[in-house]
Amino acid sequence: MPRKVAVVAGGLSYFSKARRDKTQEELAAEAARMALFDNNINLSKDDIDGTIVSYFSDHFENQLLFGSIIQDYLGFNPKPSVRIEGGGATGGLAVRDAYAHVASGLLDVAMVIGFEKMSEVNTAKGNEFIALASDTDWDFPIGGFYSGYYALMAKRHMEEFGTTEEQMAMVAVKNRNNAQHNKFAQTNPKMNPYAMKDGGKITVDDVLKSPYVAFPLKRLDICLMSDGAAVMILASEEKAKKITDTPIWITGTGAGTDAMRAGDRPRTLAGVPMLPHEKKEWYKGLEYPGVHSFRAGRESARQAYKMAGITNPLKQLDLIELHDAYTSSEIQTYEDLGLTKYGQGGKLIEEGVTALDGDLPVNPSGGLIGAMHAVGATGVMQGVEMFWQLQGVAGKFHGSDKTQIKGAERGLIHSHAGTGNLCNGYYNGEVKEMTEVYSFDPLIIKTPYEITYKHSYGKTTKFFTSLSDGKLMATRCDHCKQTFLPPRSDCPYCLRETKWVQISGKGRIHTFTTLYFSGEKFLKDLPFQLVYVELEGVDTLFLTRLKTKDMKRVKVGMKIKMKISREPEWRSSDIWAEPDE
Amino acid sequence: MPRKVAVVAGGLSYFSKARRDKTQEELAAEAARMALFDNNINLSKDDIDGTIVSYFSDHFENQLLFGSIIQDYLGFNPKPSVRIEGGGATGGLAVRDAYAHVASGLLDVAMVIGFEKMSEVNTAKGNEFIALASDTDWDFPIGGFYSGYYALMAKRHMEEFGTTEEQMAMVAVKNRNNAQHNKFAQTNPKMNPYAMKDGGKITVDDVLKSPYVAFPLKRLDICLMSDGAAVMILASEEKAKKITDTPIWITGTGAGTDAMRAGDRPRTLAGVPMLPHEKKEWYKGLEYPGVHSFRAGRESARQAYKMAGITNPLKQLDLIELHDAYTSSEIQTYEDLGLTKYGQGGKLIEEGVTALDGDLPVNPSGGLIGAMHAVGATGVMQGVEMFWQLQGVAGKFHGSDKTQIKGAERGLIHSHAGTGNLCNGYYNGEVKEMTEVYSFDPLIIKTPYEITYKHSYGKTTKFFTSLSDGKLMATRCDHCKQTFLPPRSDCPYCLRETKWVQISGKGRIHTFTTLYFSGEKFLKDLPFQLVYVELEGVDTLFLTRLKTKDMKRVKVGMKIKMKISREPEWRSSDIWAEPDE
Repeated sequence: MPRKVAVVAGGLSYFSKARRDKTQEELAAEAARMALFDNNINLSKDDIDGTIVSYFSDHFENQLLFGSIIQDYLGFNPKPSVRIEGGGATGGLAVRDAYAHVASGLLDVAMVIGFEKMSEVNTAKGNEFIALASDTDWDFPIGGFYSGYYALMAKRHMEEFGTTEEQMAMVAVKNRNNAQHNKFAQTNPKMNPYAMKDGGKITVDDVLKSPYVAFPLKRLDICLMSDGAAVMILASEEKAKKITDTPIWITGTGAGTDAMRAGDRPRTLAGVPMLPHEKKEWYKGLEYPGVHSFRAGRESARQAYKMAGITNPLKQLDLIELHDAYTSSEIQTYEDLGLTKYGQGGKLIEEGVTALDGDLPVNPSGGLIGAMHAVGATGVMQGVEMFWQLQGVAGKFHGSDKTQIKGAERGLIHSHAGTGNLCNGYYNGEVKEMTEVYSFDPLIIKTPYEITYKHSYGKTTKFFTSLSDGKLMATRCDHCKQTFLPPRSDCPYCLRETKWVQISGKGRIHTFTTLYFSGEKFLKDLPFQLVYVELEGVDTLFLTRLKTKDMKRVKVGMKIKMKISREPEWRSSDIWAEPDE
Repeated sequence: MPRKVAVVAGGLSYFSKARRDKTQEELAAEAARMALFDNNINLSKDDIDGTIVSYFSDHFENQLLFGSIIQDYLGFNPKPSVRIEGGGATGGLAVRDAYAHVASGLLDVAMVIGFEKMSEVNTAKGNEFIALASDTDWDFPIGGFYSGYYALMAKRHMEEFGTTEEQMAMVAVKNRNNAQHNKFAQTNPKMNPYAMKDGGKITVDDVLKSPYVAFPLKRLDICLMSDGAAVMILASEEKAKKITDTPIWITGTGAGTDAMRAGDRPRTLAGVPMLPHEKKEWYKGLEYPGVHSFRAGRESARQAYKMAGITNPLKQLDLIELHDAYTSSEIQTYEDLGLTKYGQGGKLIEEGVTALDGDLPVNPSGGLIGAMHAVGATGVMQGVEMFWQLQGVAGKFHGSDKTQIKGAERGLIHSHAGTGNLCNGYYNGEVKEMTEVYSFDPLIIKTPYEITYKHSYGKTTKFFTSLSDGKLMATRCDHCKQTFLPPRSDCPYCLRETKWVQISGKGRIHTFTTLYFSGEKFLKDLPFQLVYVELEGVDTLFLTRLKTKDMKRVKVGMKIKMKISREPEWRSSDIWAEPDE
């Protein structure tokens, strides 16, 4: 039997679009001090046996091995430390890793330190960095932008299940307005001295009137991009009982993955991983996992429910903090966490089930849309929030009693990313300096950085060289009877080598979006259209640009034909779709 | 009691300066196939419960979240996966994390997948990326280059303990010549089709005649920079016994850290973490941890020995695979692993103790100097090597019986990085294409990438603004009676806020080096000198440039004075040392 593991303390920094008053190390110290000194615990800094450090990408500060700097800055040398990374799910995976370290006996008391400082680059470059977490050979070069990828998912979800833009707007209103009672939240100018000045409460109408970023997603449908830090302390059963009278036990954990290129998900091969209360007949005929679904989240929920003995999440859980990178993804996540039948998430928000006073409040903190998304800190923030909620002290820390879920005994935190599911922060095109809270003017330096990459396409080279002959090639595994585009040299099902086959390039639109904003590299192309296409003879979906003068005619199911550039640059942008009807 | 954990399979790719014949995903598949299909195990791919993915930096391929791509490519969706990162120690930390996942019960069978493709940027840019894993506010701007940092350590080690350049050369000869019996090794042109053509055996004289990179380190003292992948499979006791008749048990694991800025190490406060066979009186008067020592490695050894019941490593271990980023660091590591009394590592290599036919062979594979250093794969490669050695099948995999340590029953693998201890690959200024092994010409594209960072110095701002007044400022914790330069806003010992104090800028040289090569950014400045200085009234050492016309006069202990630029650019390079005697 692995050892029982409890959470015994939590701490947060104030979150902001740009915390230029402090370096990243200083922000981590802000959260660590709260965890160590403000949680009414019997624990000194020396009692920490090691740390798990959580941040997303070296790109945001051009500082590699930042985990070592934080470990040193907080004075934890020579104790063990490890950095965990998993895109938007980085923080949640770090909490899971700390669980593994304590449950296995490697550490008795572990500190999880999550942080990110995203303000060192402008918003468009930040979006571009996040988009570098999509496949840079295939999905990124055509105009990669996470809001675009999520818009494609959202449009398909609307098409299949009737989800509406109004329902999405309700999610934004719920989370943003919850955040107005949480002093750490970036959208809360009344309580957070580092908040956005144009934060505050919003209405469904505000969301619907906010400009499109990527149809059908609008500015207020999209989460924040933040600077900040979050810290949790976990302990073994023996230690936890000495540290606090009210340890919060971790009773289950799960993790899942799916294809980063959402078009590669095996829509017809894999089926729906079933949750305990679900019935197989609910999902007959459903293509799953497709671009509308989060199999990774579902699989992780399946594992965690099993471990914790949860057989009906809607009834047994008292609250959830989930990864609301987009209003649409909160709705999708309701479905993959099993809060409602798959496809019915829109109705759940409409019925108020997930409101602060609903049956199962979701994101009382304000979530990523209302409170923060400093990527490496996000999952840890959720853990801290859940810890305070279950201890019944959320009001004390938030500075307002309104967010405390009365009598909460069992909660779920949900981190999300991996495999094509990443958040894109979008808010405030320009950083606003918040000098009124600085006691000095921090020194800010500009540093340009240049790199030239020399990238080999390896065994997928043939795809590109065939373009010169006007041929579109894919790869096929005869053993598994699957044809892949983008091509794969090795079959993911059996690891056998694949063979090349020519395809016609004819197909149909599976889902579409129009982009009005993007990563820095593609700003010059705006607006433009992205589509997933179903190609004849190919089992995966293919992400590409759609070029048409009449965007209004575009609909799901429309016939298209792939075109090839006469002057290939050896990028996936050498091919695109045009209407064929 | 945590569950017992065994290694049950291993696989490697061929290593090379540039494996342009395959993408990173395809290299991972090469190693994964060997692990799954060539280890005589009763295990199918579907039996893997999850993966631990190991790579060092997004910078090398400008692809974020590469772990998800590998997970997908190898067909492990929707199973759990997490990425581990810790600089040069990334691979070793990933193996430890897999141990924690299995011991805690989260996974029964785990695959560790380590990889790195370092050839997409030129060697000087690669060195610069590695140097971005030093503090970019302080150590990097003055000419950051890992060979320089290690040269400073090596010079201090020579000064304190009488270590010689000849002893260092013996390490290079041992490791490089061991590699000539390992078909995967990058320096083995007879057996590895992707090897360096100027590889092969070397002599002490070859090493001593090779050009200085950073005095006292020469080209042949320095490890490789590689493309490649390594895969291990770990399993719980119950599963392991079904998978193989010869599981190799993991009986201990440890991890440690130290200050990345080696000058910040608490030379007089911390003392030497004692290993079981050591006596306190051995180390009276020794400043430890200083720039010559690896407290992180020592602390990790202490933990692992304790867990495994090792009381005398030299006698109880049959072989070691350790992180020989430099010949000097192999010698330093002998001491911190307790193979000899601290400071006596040079004699150990001289006496042949660590030779292939010595009492305790070190790096039979060839190590990082002879075999490979594809950062994220390195620690995993060591794990694979140890697994094959203890199974007695190293000869079969290596293609030569000469490396198999007869009757080996107990071995140690040692990963190294974190906190200022990173390897710098240096070999072959230019990539050599190895077209004779390609069955096609892979397509190689060039992609320039530009970023402008806007970095805030936060609460350390005062250091820089004071330079305009000609003042050098440090921070002090009155409670802990420690003065820090670089300044820290928060005391690492007590987490209290520090206060500013002015310092004189007078001091002495603690150790020095001259750089003849560097990261791309600093090539224009070559050659130049770096020093650690002991400054009056400051408890940490400070890394800076030394400007002098008479480099020959420079010696440890020489008086210096810090100078301040009249036109500060707000970088740590605004100040430097000049001789003051």
